[in-house]
Amino acid sequence: MKLIDGKKIQTEMIEELNHKVSDLMFAPKLVIIQVGDFGPSNKYVAQKKTVGEKVGIDVEHIRFYEDNTEEEILNKIDELNEDPKVNGIMVQLPLPKGFDEDKITNRVSSKKDVDGLTTENIGLLFDGKNAFTPCTALGVMELFKRYNIDLKGKHAVILGRSKLVGKPLIACLLNENATVTVCHSKTENLSSITKKADILIVAIGKKHFVTKDMIKKGTVIIDVGINVEDGKIYGDVNFDDVKEKASFLTPVPNGVGRMTVISLMNNVIKAYQEQSK
Amino acid sequence: MKLIDGKKIQTEMIEELNHKVSDLMFAPKLVIIQVGDFGPSNKYVAQKKTVGEKVGIDVEHIRFYEDNTEEEILNKIDELNEDPKVNGIMVQLPLPKGFDEDKITNRVSSKKDVDGLTTENIGLLFDGKNAFTPCTALGVMELFKRYNIDLKGKHAVILGRSKLVGKPLIACLLNENATVTVCHSKTENLSSITKKADILIVAIGKKHFVTKDMIKKGTVIIDVGINVEDGKIYGDVNFDDVKEKASFLTPVPNGVGRMTVISLMNNVIKAYQEQSK
Repeated sequence: MKLIDGKKIQTEMIEELNHKVSDLMFAPKLVIIQVGDFGPSNKYVAQKKTVGEKVGIDVEHIRFYEDNTEEEILNKIDELNEDPKVNGIMVQLPLPKGFDEDKITNRVSSKKDVDGLTTENIGLLFDGKNAFTPCTALGVMELFKRYNIDLKGKHAVILGRSKLVGKPLIACLLNENATVTVCHSKTENLSSITKKADILIVAIGKKHFVTKDMIKKGTVIIDVGINVEDGKIYGDVNFDDVKEKASFLTPVPNGVGRMTVISLMNNVIKAYQEQSK
Repeated sequence: MKLIDGKKIQTEMIEELNHKVSDLMFAPKLVIIQVGDFGPSNKYVAQKKTVGEKVGIDVEHIRFYEDNTEEEILNKIDELNEDPKVNGIMVQLPLPKGFDEDKITNRVSSKKDVDGLTTENIGLLFDGKNAFTPCTALGVMELFKRYNIDLKGKHAVILGRSKLVGKPLIACLLNENATVTVCHSKTENLSSITKKADILIVAIGKKHFVTKDMIKKGTVIIDVGINVEDGKIYGDVNFDDVKEKASFLTPVPNGVGRMTVISLMNNVIKAYQEQSK
């Protein structure tokens, strides 16, 4: 089994993107809108600032509070959409109760939607057009590229159909000419399907769900799961159990998790470049 | 094998929709925009007028010519988007060379996009939101409903990933909790996948491509193919070959082909109802 080293790829990408940014006229700018003071969100925003700094992207953090109105947030997004100095805008999810996530994320201009969550971007992605791919899905696709994993004609099986991971991966994998199967909580005879996978992507949020009896020998396994138990992080795949049978395997931590924020920065640079045309 | 009788369902639906329309305040209105004088398009437009008349939908046909400009067509669409008497707008494809199909179809307001081809509608469909489903895909879903074919947890395999059929069916089938596989021209070991299908939907445009050695006993087979040879119509499935092995099977003609235009009318009524809210 070959380990897919997310940490190493992240380090390489920081360097590459930093180099790319240094060739640009201005520093690209990302604005993160947060509502409230949710602990994990604070941590994610801080991560984005840190990685942004390393890459040379200007990350501005705008915080609203529960007593701000939806209208105030929408007005701010309108203003940022119009601001030529702002290249990317993202809304840090989840929002506190009472705020309409769908309406607020959809207010972001599709040209600045570096999280790829607007209806317009989902449509573009599934239509095989130029789109912003949601960051975790983009990170997974980057791993395939960096490890020269051939997708064309291969059978990719996705476990999970979330808006952030499973669904955009359908489009990404089809766009790369893979055969794609999507499984989920209602799937019957799951193992009979996962055993057919040349590539298995697991994003269901269940600790160590995938075991060696569910796969064939030589499967490429991408573990998107991040399950926290007693302060420790576990993937959706039982790493030790499958490691002899898989051909490629991502660890958790230091696998896919390392790819999300750097992929966001990739999208911000893409936004900058498209807006400069 | 039970025959899925598209002709019979079409007749039933015409009656049902006619009944539905008679309860509305006004006749719903569909505008079809055609550019040029392409023979098959003329035929399809005529079909839509005939079915529209039977249902009680007012179908207006607006024809442009090759010497009209794109601008003139876009202006007409803008005007129709604003016209409260118009509920649905569709552009008859293909357009003559030199006209940007993507730009023109995307100009239709997503609220009147009864063909379901705008980026916005594709995004809504894949996001599991209220959307207009492209008519052939909608027709296929209607057949499942009318024949009480259970989709939940079942393995549906789609051959073909077109914008009109294969891709929207991914979303429709996932929204009904099926496990979904998409195969296409680049798929390796196709038979090993189709043999796993509980439900097989074939939309690849290859006469009699699917044979009994490609399926397991009891598969539900939906044949979307319309292949014309010497004036006769053939499906993508070899009907006689698979008929003993399939549990349900659509004929060609008089199968899925009967569902497309009536599904368009269904979308026009849906548009009317949503615009009346």
